[in-house]
Amino acid sequence: MSMAGPGSIARRGFLDILGGLAVAAQLEGVSGEARAAPVDSTVGVARFGGRSLQFTDLTHKLTRQFNFDPSNPRISMESVDGSGVAVGMKMHRLALIEHTGTHIDAPSHFGEQFKSLGEIPLSDLVVPLVVVDISAKAAKSRDAQVEPADVLAWERRHGRLPDGCCVAVHSGWDPFAEMARNQAAHSHNSTGFGIEAARMLAEKRRVKGIAVDAMTIDSGPNVPSYPVHQFWLRSGRWGIEGITNLRSVPPVGALLVVGAAPIAEATGLPVRAIALF
Amino acid sequence: MSMAGPGSIARRGFLDILGGLAVAAQLEGVSGEARAAPVDSTVGVARFGGRSLQFTDLTHKLTRQFNFDPSNPRISMESVDGSGVAVGMKMHRLALIEHTGTHIDAPSHFGEQFKSLGEIPLSDLVVPLVVVDISAKAAKSRDAQVEPADVLAWERRHGRLPDGCCVAVHSGWDPFAEMARNQAAHSHNSTGFGIEAARMLAEKRRVKGIAVDAMTIDSGPNVPSYPVHQFWLRSGRWGIEGITNLRSVPPVGALLVVGAAPIAEATGLPVRAIALF
Repeated sequence: MSMAGPGSIARRGFLDILGGLAVAAQLEGVSGEARAAPVDSTVGVARFGGRSLQFTDLTHKLTRQFNFDPSNPRISMESVDGSGVAVGMKMHRLALIEHTGTHIDAPSHFGEQFKSLGEIPLSDLVVPLVVVDISAKAAKSRDAQVEPADVLAWERRHGRLPDGCCVAVHSGWDPFAEMARNQAAHSHNSTGFGIEAARMLAEKRRVKGIAVDAMTIDSGPNVPSYPVHQFWLRSGRWGIEGITNLRSVPPVGALLVVGAAPIAEATGLPVRAIALF
Repeated sequence: MSMAGPGSIARRGFLDILGGLAVAAQLEGVSGEARAAPVDSTVGVARFGGRSLQFTDLTHKLTRQFNFDPSNPRISMESVDGSGVAVGMKMHRLALIEHTGTHIDAPSHFGEQFKSLGEIPLSDLVVPLVVVDISAKAAKSRDAQVEPADVLAWERRHGRLPDGCCVAVHSGWDPFAEMARNQAAHSHNSTGFGIEAARMLAEKRRVKGIAVDAMTIDSGPNVPSYPVHQFWLRSGRWGIEGITNLRSVPPVGALLVVGAAPIAEATGLPVRAIALF
């Protein structure tokens, strides 16, 4: 989570963020209708070696407007000449905050002594996916958080959480719509995990990762003390923020592939998150 | 492919590159033994929904030393304070050339009018994987390239290429070892695809992507005119450069998942390339 720079979202609310987006959009000459947009062709079937698997894209398209931190520099792409410039080669030097768009938080996001992105083994990134739907309570409170009771209710319907899984939360959060809502209310609401549920998933179950459709694994009232980030990431586990399309995935039985380039020392990175089932 | 900046590898050879690596390694205080290192835990088994799949990581770990373009700025990570700085949050502004490490070339790498990374649908990135082994001829010539005869020989053993597949080439190329070899020989050899094979895969078969363990889909003698890049990418298809671990994957029957974050306007990006079978 890196919603805000030194000025802190908790003090400023989301107002500045949406304002920053609008100003930046004008500066960059884009239309004002920047929206969170799941990429095209999000669902399909792959056939290989006599098998077939459905796939679903759980990733928001990452545009220059998709930025939750107005105090930090936005995504930039600077054209660079390559050796093929004479025959039409184009490329950029790309710069971005590691925690932008649909992204992973590595354990090192909360301390250099913890695993960086490049140190997370693939066996922790190709894991069973479980979807917990809290959209009913999120419709009543924009700060709704996952509690142990939500996990227990899920288990009564679907059985015990599979070992080594990722628990992803569908709250119905949409990055741009929620920012607009917060702007109108001068608030900084967000859905997320509660600390009791995080402790339960780490200590009573064998969960490798958590994912949220909001932009913080901590719910709004826990920003900027970040108890879930502190506990979960420092336990060596990872989080994904800004996941989407969870309604297209079964509550249990899918495989999550976290397509995160293994960059040494990175504390996080935009990813391609994919469900197969 | 972005091996060289305006100075061009074809004119300077790989000497400068390895020199650049060594100097940079000293400057950054790392040991001299920078090597291409496939990430840990490269192989395992995932169980989900009553199924099980083996997985293999086809990705080189991307370090600050993994850079093939001494004329361009290296990977940089600048610490940035987030809203959780008081409770230990760490994060960076990351900057890199899009074509670094194990990476994808989007069609827009050879022209802005072609699809950028964010426009490639997931259905083109979750595809059957075929491995063609040219290591025997690559051991004789460091410029060995895939020719139509190699594809036909593969098909005699394994059947027709599956529709929509990625054809990946195992030549035995290792980025750092090959640069050292080129340095010693003042050469710029590289394995890759020949233009005749590329045309065959696009026009006579239904291939969506090609991948090489070298750092260019064009073989060394075709740099910097890049006929394969020009033809293949402008046909709307993608390439992966710097793939690895292909010996751990069957010649046919695996699924390739190209974990590329869908960044609008990007011409390429480091990826997590994963085989499932």
